[in-house]
Amino acid sequence: MPNENEPAAFAFHGLQRVFHERSRLSILSSLAAHPAGLAFNDLKQLCDLTDGNLSRQIQMLQEELLVDVNKGYHGKRPQTVCKLTDDGRARFLAYLGELERVIRTAAKSQDVPARIVQTRPTA
Amino acid sequence: MPNENEPAAFAFHGLQRVFHERSRLSILSSLAAHPAGLAFNDLKQLCDLTDGNLSRQIQMLQEELLVDVNKGYHGKRPQTVCKLTDDGRARFLAYLGELERVIRTAAKSQDVPARIVQTRPTA
Repeated sequence: MPNENEPAAFAFHGLQRVFHERSRLSILSSLAAHPAGLAFNDLKQLCDLTDGNLSRQIQMLQEELLVDVNKGYHGKRPQTVCKLTDDGRARFLAYLGELERVIRTAAKSQDVPARIVQTRPTA
Repeated sequence: MPNENEPAAFAFHGLQRVFHERSRLSILSSLAAHPAGLAFNDLKQLCDLTDGNLSRQIQMLQEELLVDVNKGYHGKRPQTVCKLTDDGRARFLAYLGELERVIRTAAKSQDVPARIVQTRPTA
């Protein structure tokens, strides 16, 4: 029986679609792990996405102010570099926190080993 | 720059859509945490879903052999009880493992605190 104090304990409303959709989750994780930014072609390879799909997703992430895109040059070659915005990083971290909660919540079953231990910095 | 040994290190192909979509993730997490199963109305409340949406998602999960549905009675009232199948539990655990990997991978950045420590049982 559900806990009456948490009527919608498994609703996970924090899993917003802009972060949760798999290809965008790939892109944002790649960029979070590369604070200096990533060239479009490296991002394409890391996320295993097509040019078209990556372009569409990057455009959506730009419109949401999560990602900055700079068109410049690498030597004489034109190069597009994508980077998380500060706000994008903060919001993506909040999303990851919700993902952690999903795993901990699902692990509450006796059958599911609680493999995740959270170690928050003392702050 | 990406690690050449892992060309698609952030592709997360294990995040299959049947598990990853938010409402199905809610349903499966609820059922994983309640091994004896949950009545349709309790599940609806825990996941904050409408009758129609929950019915559609449950039907899809049944077709994927992830969830069993039993129509019975609670006293004199008809009651529908949903339960993870053994295969559903195993496959959902594998999906959760991939989610853990997403969090650890995203936390590799110096800016992102590695808040997750994995404690696997010695087996």
